[in-house]
Amino acid sequence: MPQAQLLKYLEGITAEGHIGMDCSVVPTRHKGLFLISTTDFFYPLVEDPYIQGKIACANVLSDLYAFGVVDCDNMLMILGVSEGMQQAEKDVVTSQMIAGFNDLAHEAGTSVTGGQTVKNPWPIIGGVAFSLCSEAEFIRPVHAVAGDVLVLTKPLGTNVVTNVHQWLEHADRWSRVANITTEEEVKRGYEMGMQSMSHLNRNAARYMLTYGAHAATDVTGFGILGHAVNLAGNQNADVSFEIHTLPLIRGALACDKV
Amino acid sequence: MPQAQLLKYLEGITAEGHIGMDCSVVPTRHKGLFLISTTDFFYPLVEDPYIQGKIACANVLSDLYAFGVVDCDNMLMILGVSEGMQQAEKDVVTSQMIAGFNDLAHEAGTSVTGGQTVKNPWPIIGGVAFSLCSEAEFIRPVHAVAGDVLVLTKPLGTNVVTNVHQWLEHADRWSRVANITTEEEVKRGYEMGMQSMSHLNRNAARYMLTYGAHAATDVTGFGILGHAVNLAGNQNADVSFEIHTLPLIRGALACDKV
Repeated sequence: MPQAQLLKYLEGITAEGHIGMDCSVVPTRHKGLFLISTTDFFYPLVEDPYIQGKIACANVLSDLYAFGVVDCDNMLMILGVSEGMQQAEKDVVTSQMIAGFNDLAHEAGTSVTGGQTVKNPWPIIGGVAFSLCSEAEFIRPVHAVAGDVLVLTKPLGTNVVTNVHQWLEHADRWSRVANITTEEEVKRGYEMGMQSMSHLNRNAARYMLTYGAHAATDVTGFGILGHAVNLAGNQNADVSFEIHTLPLIRGALACDKV
Repeated sequence: MPQAQLLKYLEGITAEGHIGMDCSVVPTRHKGLFLISTTDFFYPLVEDPYIQGKIACANVLSDLYAFGVVDCDNMLMILGVSEGMQQAEKDVVTSQMIAGFNDLAHEAGTSVTGGQTVKNPWPIIGGVAFSLCSEAEFIRPVHAVAGDVLVLTKPLGTNVVTNVHQWLEHADRWSRVANITTEEEVKRGYEMGMQSMSHLNRNAARYMLTYGAHAATDVTGFGILGHAVNLAGNQNADVSFEIHTLPLIRGALACDKV
């Protein structure tokens, strides 16, 4: 959904803080403790349902990590089980998505203790992550000042490479990029994208706390520009972000221009 | 999804406690405090998107209330925006669903502070609710003993009346129930169902704590039988539930037999 439209729908919601940011932070009835929570999903952009599950889990946790939260206390899993599959296929795909999500949650030192299942035309998996934190255990991403350095922890272009990888199966679409990339480059980019997306940003969260980062966000559905504008707009100080050097998955830029 | 199949998918998940119950309960790093959380959804079974939003919110909170949790600390909203609607229709429906969810959250003394949006063929709305509780502020629903009385806080038959209400628009389907009910009865049942489903069970949660209830569950997608079997199976004691007198929305029973 377009970002502007989403924000329009959410106008009616009056939350304290910054509703466009990655996590919700609410003070609890227990003094000095904040409940930090987020929910996110991942669509079947990759062919391997196990990896889809891992990416979905990394995607949810990434929101916490963008707040400098290192320890997730608990996760819920939300599962869209495909109605368009045969039973045997559905069993394998669903079980593999769950396994991928669950395994990465354990790697992150947390666990999945509940959730909900819905029927959907395509398989979808997402979840909820929360952490109960004292003020020192997280960073509100609103303190950027002039002179701060922006760091990107993963290469851009994952959306492009997963899309172009699907084009390998469609001759007419593939013909649009056949002269600017190769099957080998696309497959390599796709592997790199899957690996990157299923990699936890937990160390980045640790470094944020260690080095007193001023702000952060995770770059997902709205792209680098959408998320940068959103992050800049949420700063207490009047700042503008200058983004000049972007790490990219090889081949993604050329294909993105098609 | 059939309950048995769902439980099969979830076999790989090793959570402490009872994964089939309404909420997840996890101890936090902060002594004596538990994070109680749940997620749930509601489909467009009713025609009014505002009521759909309210029902979705009541449905999520109902899981907390079934654990005797009176105060929800925070909610997230999960929104499926329909791809099958014209823009103007989509704007109205989405805004109304959000407003309904949000209004009922406020009525429940909590608020929505975040969430996520996904594209979907049909409009769907759900969310996440959590509460940070000390041991005295909630009830683990596993302490039923022989002699306990079962109390149902809402009438059954909401699924039937919402379905039959849709049949009013389909002459061939309506003909199957035309001789056992009337349009007036169906409309009355539908109104009652909507009112019932969008009504908070918060007082029931208060009474659970006041009178030391031993166990509870909310009766939703799996029906009274599915949820009763699940609840009975999760008890520490070896109990069986005898359900003999069921409050029903008028007309629902006859239609259910068609």
